[in-house]
Amino acid sequence: MVPVYERVALIGLGLIASSMAHAMRRDGLAGEIVGYAKSAETRKIAREMGLCDVITDSAAEAVQDADLVVLCVPVGAMGTVAREIGPVLKPGATVSDVGSVKRNVIEAVGPHIPDGVHFIPAHPLAGTEHSGPRSGFAELFDDRYTIIVPVPGSDAEAVSRLTALWKGMGALVEEMDPEHHDLVLAVTSHTPHLIAYTMVGVADDLRRVTDSEVIKYSAAGFRDFTRIAASDPVMWRDVFLSNKEATLEILGRFTEELFALQRAIRQEDGDHLHDYFTRTRAIRRGIIEAGQDTDAPDFGRVKARQG
Amino acid sequence: MVPVYERVALIGLGLIASSMAHAMRRDGLAGEIVGYAKSAETRKIAREMGLCDVITDSAAEAVQDADLVVLCVPVGAMGTVAREIGPVLKPGATVSDVGSVKRNVIEAVGPHIPDGVHFIPAHPLAGTEHSGPRSGFAELFDDRYTIIVPVPGSDAEAVSRLTALWKGMGALVEEMDPEHHDLVLAVTSHTPHLIAYTMVGVADDLRRVTDSEVIKYSAAGFRDFTRIAASDPVMWRDVFLSNKEATLEILGRFTEELFALQRAIRQEDGDHLHDYFTRTRAIRRGIIEAGQDTDAPDFGRVKARQG
Repeated sequence: MVPVYERVALIGLGLIASSMAHAMRRDGLAGEIVGYAKSAETRKIAREMGLCDVITDSAAEAVQDADLVVLCVPVGAMGTVAREIGPVLKPGATVSDVGSVKRNVIEAVGPHIPDGVHFIPAHPLAGTEHSGPRSGFAELFDDRYTIIVPVPGSDAEAVSRLTALWKGMGALVEEMDPEHHDLVLAVTSHTPHLIAYTMVGVADDLRRVTDSEVIKYSAAGFRDFTRIAASDPVMWRDVFLSNKEATLEILGRFTEELFALQRAIRQEDGDHLHDYFTRTRAIRRGIIEAGQDTDAPDFGRVKARQG
Repeated sequence: MVPVYERVALIGLGLIASSMAHAMRRDGLAGEIVGYAKSAETRKIAREMGLCDVITDSAAEAVQDADLVVLCVPVGAMGTVAREIGPVLKPGATVSDVGSVKRNVIEAVGPHIPDGVHFIPAHPLAGTEHSGPRSGFAELFDDRYTIIVPVPGSDAEAVSRLTALWKGMGALVEEMDPEHHDLVLAVTSHTPHLIAYTMVGVADDLRRVTDSEVIKYSAAGFRDFTRIAASDPVMWRDVFLSNKEATLEILGRFTEELFALQRAIRQEDGDHLHDYFTRTRAIRRGIIEAGQDTDAPDFGRVKARQG
């Protein structure tokens, strides 16, 4: 198979970058993969693992002669990295990223991209609660969406090449503008994460219910919140700070609805509760039908425990 | 194997009762299983499936000569069923239930239990988002906790026999008093469910993000909420109405914490967010170590899809 890019540089070697390395190798999508991480410990692990063909000791070194550079660092670090690599990018190269927020990344990275280099932001909607170079696996993007967010003037050929890479890694690809992306993600990801973090924090804080009780009895519902509340703290801090407006808007809506349900409980308005709970079932059915979750009892947890 | 109970009556034939029927049969725990459901359609399905040895057309008929009667109906219906069966219960029999709330059930059921019959409330902490007689499976209770909530005067031998049944069905068994049970469940189950319902409702309500977008991009976090927000609406309406005080208390704590995080976002207080998110990770690790979830990437969803 002819590689989609001859030389790919991954800046940051966490869950997404390490999964990309595995997925690109699985399907021969890159001629050579070069990696860099800020932490010496991460670089050491990545070298030991043979995660990439080369691990460099600076971002500038990693991107030299790269046909595709993918910024896989927390959203708050994107601008700093872009400033460092901007001057040494190869003319005609593509710079992309995997950040969970797009408007803010475009503002931080865009000014550092020289003429003749294509800047095409992207966001794979896939993840686990694990982080670091050992957490990646080739199947992470299979049947999950990657949203490509072209900026004004994005070269159509460069966009279709990046699309081919993501499809090659198993992803379904869609295009969106940055504002809409940030709103959709505030609803489907950022606000749910904040709420999950809050609920886990409340449980941890209570004096009358012990942590060990919360843990033992978590299968009753709480468990489903803890997975997303275990995600990387730096990444999520940056997401909330950089998608502030949309997150606060959706949080406002959430609080409004929560207060309405709280009042229904206080006033013992069973009909209101029943109607609300009936409506939300339909959404779940849609997700199963769209192939974005398994319908196996308990998410296939039973199977996984036996395996 | 000698059955733990000669004749077991299941009143209500939803997820829990049908899973109990499968689990009791798997290990020969009951000599005979009799079932009753209020809905004629449910009784018809249960008969077609051969779910129980006998399906009766009334609750009173089902409990005749039963050594164990398990009330598997929504919490709000427990009192009505207990009033109906009270007069025909066999002396020396045990009546138990599987309701998610205990104080309220004890108040509703207790007065209808005649002298000489043992009333031992219980609550298996296990479930899926599915309901009805076809949703059950024998492994539902494996390695999950069932909480037994003895009432004053509960006979020790009757309690240990019920414990043996639940252990036989694969469960880990703990005892708790009703007030503590209701508070622990408000934290680990009831409030998380209400929050999940709210978040799914908000997503469904937005005009600027379509339902199809919410569904397509749900793997980014939202999906984990939809499973628990797809649970049986009648069951959950009754849970919130009957565990009102504890749920409202935990909701109050939740709102307080959420507002603090919301303010941190508005004020761009990254340290506050980072510290909070770091603390919640430890809880997740505890759940994995306690064997109450799988550590497989994506909950083993990848595997389940392939299977």
